[in-house]
Amino acid sequence: MKKRILFGMDIGGTNTVYGLVDENAKLIAHSGFKTNTKPEINAYVKIIAEQLSAMYNKYSTEYELAGIGVGAPNGNYYTGSIKLPPNIPWIKDLNLVQELKKYFDVPIVLTNDANAMAYGEMIFGAAQGAKDIIVITLGTGLGSGIIVNGKVVYGHEGIAGELGHVCVVPNGRHCACGKDGCLETYASASGIKRTLFQLIAEHDGKSVFNTITFEQLTSKMIAEAALQGDPIALEAFEYTGNLLGLALANAALVTQPEVVVLSGGLAKAGDLIFKPTIKAFEKYLLPLYRDKIKVIPSTLKNDSAAIMGAAALVWNEMDNN
Amino acid sequence: MKKRILFGMDIGGTNTVYGLVDENAKLIAHSGFKTNTKPEINAYVKIIAEQLSAMYNKYSTEYELAGIGVGAPNGNYYTGSIKLPPNIPWIKDLNLVQELKKYFDVPIVLTNDANAMAYGEMIFGAAQGAKDIIVITLGTGLGSGIIVNGKVVYGHEGIAGELGHVCVVPNGRHCACGKDGCLETYASASGIKRTLFQLIAEHDGKSVFNTITFEQLTSKMIAEAALQGDPIALEAFEYTGNLLGLALANAALVTQPEVVVLSGGLAKAGDLIFKPTIKAFEKYLLPLYRDKIKVIPSTLKNDSAAIMGAAALVWNEMDNN
Repeated sequence: MKKRILFGMDIGGTNTVYGLVDENAKLIAHSGFKTNTKPEINAYVKIIAEQLSAMYNKYSTEYELAGIGVGAPNGNYYTGSIKLPPNIPWIKDLNLVQELKKYFDVPIVLTNDANAMAYGEMIFGAAQGAKDIIVITLGTGLGSGIIVNGKVVYGHEGIAGELGHVCVVPNGRHCACGKDGCLETYASASGIKRTLFQLIAEHDGKSVFNTITFEQLTSKMIAEAALQGDPIALEAFEYTGNLLGLALANAALVTQPEVVVLSGGLAKAGDLIFKPTIKAFEKYLLPLYRDKIKVIPSTLKNDSAAIMGAAALVWNEMDNN
Repeated sequence: MKKRILFGMDIGGTNTVYGLVDENAKLIAHSGFKTNTKPEINAYVKIIAEQLSAMYNKYSTEYELAGIGVGAPNGNYYTGSIKLPPNIPWIKDLNLVQELKKYFDVPIVLTNDANAMAYGEMIFGAAQGAKDIIVITLGTGLGSGIIVNGKVVYGHEGIAGELGHVCVVPNGRHCACGKDGCLETYASASGIKRTLFQLIAEHDGKSVFNTITFEQLTSKMIAEAALQGDPIALEAFEYTGNLLGLALANAALVTQPEVVVLSGGLAKAGDLIFKPTIKAFEKYLLPLYRDKIKVIPSTLKNDSAAIMGAAALVWNEMDNN
């Protein structure tokens, strides 16, 4: 009998990556292409189908394809659609599950990319063994996936888990979503850049960043300056961690997780971001909740985490049916 | 064959109430006693056992007792214990499930009183038919029960769902829990009293409440003054609703509920509290979430809601096993 194998796929604004994952959670093969290679829905679906078929064909004597899991921005678990993803403007409403079903007669599960990542952390990553988990991705924006009792929280219409848009500062910074004061305008790679510029303004420009434009500035540069002891860069991390810790504590009071996982570029700053985040997190928790919830970095490799997470999601789906 | 019947019980700081609920969700009989009648654990458990037995004996020819559901402050679903309930100081750590098992050989489920209420709203009340629900009780404090995909969210250790203690105003009002700025210091019967006094201070005492002490003041008096058009009382409701709406929106971004139910004394103020709450709620939601989530009053009668909710919880438990 052939062994079962799954495709995990992650659709990002820049890259579409996919891979074959076996039942032992081993990534057998992986590849990808630029999402904008064919910026038109039918052509894009066709290229996915062709590439997946080509990869699977190499392994089809040994393995049987058992399912496809997909993580995508604004992916809806219930409908199978990707709707107005902010970073892929040419996708308006793509029902990828329905389209891929034309090529592959296997269970296909699609969800928000952050949910897929969260699932990956639970099955393969830093949150292994836990059933109540919050996973935060601190990238350009802030993505989040919430797991309650071992299951991703999808919500009434499949779009739950938007911690990036909880309001942490009423009438605060303007967010691309149209609201003001959203967490992701503070706790993200772009948020900490805004904080640094705010601090430069407050400190009248006494900073090692005096000759850097907003466009040139990266969160990595802020982390490097902080490691050198630059007070404004250090203050930027304190400020970011304080608001992230506040929002995480408020979310933890809803679901009482066992583990909070921080992933993404900004989480790579290590103690610089973890220390102020954990300090604020503990401060804003109810006393009964304190000193119990781990706040830890992701242990998944960035390039495979999303693939593995999407694949894990479909394994779980099949085990429950 | 005898029909199945359940006990639902609600333990409050003032009253312990209980009743028999049949499979058609009909409250067959109910009664209660002062929680402090026997302020000692063994005596208290004994009085519960005696009263339940006496009530059940009247119906035991027709019905068979199938289970007991209990809602209690700081009740833990996983352990069956009531731990340091703020309003019943003589209970330190009472494993009521274990104690009642000595008297009744049936499934016994215990949880937080707010969770039991939330369950009651889903099965019998305002949230019937919905599977993703947030229920808020605006009493002396603020209790909350969260339901995701038809199941109460218990969290890692059984104490999830503490919206009363999310921070809505960093460094804000001091809360009995030890933190500052907790939602329940603003959105509760006692919270709106604090707000009214704050507004009197800001407006230099130009208020119909000038001759009322803090001890005399009730949230009902504030509602009555607001209905008469008193500007300070109206502002107190606006202020309360704005912070409640903000916190509810932030929680809704975690679980994307279909329905939010407001119950308890302050919710009886109707439009006075619902209008500003809904206005802020919609404002702080992500655009994709707007105009979809109902914020509605409880339809359960206060005296039976908690009994019915606790009973519903144990029905559900049995159906799942």
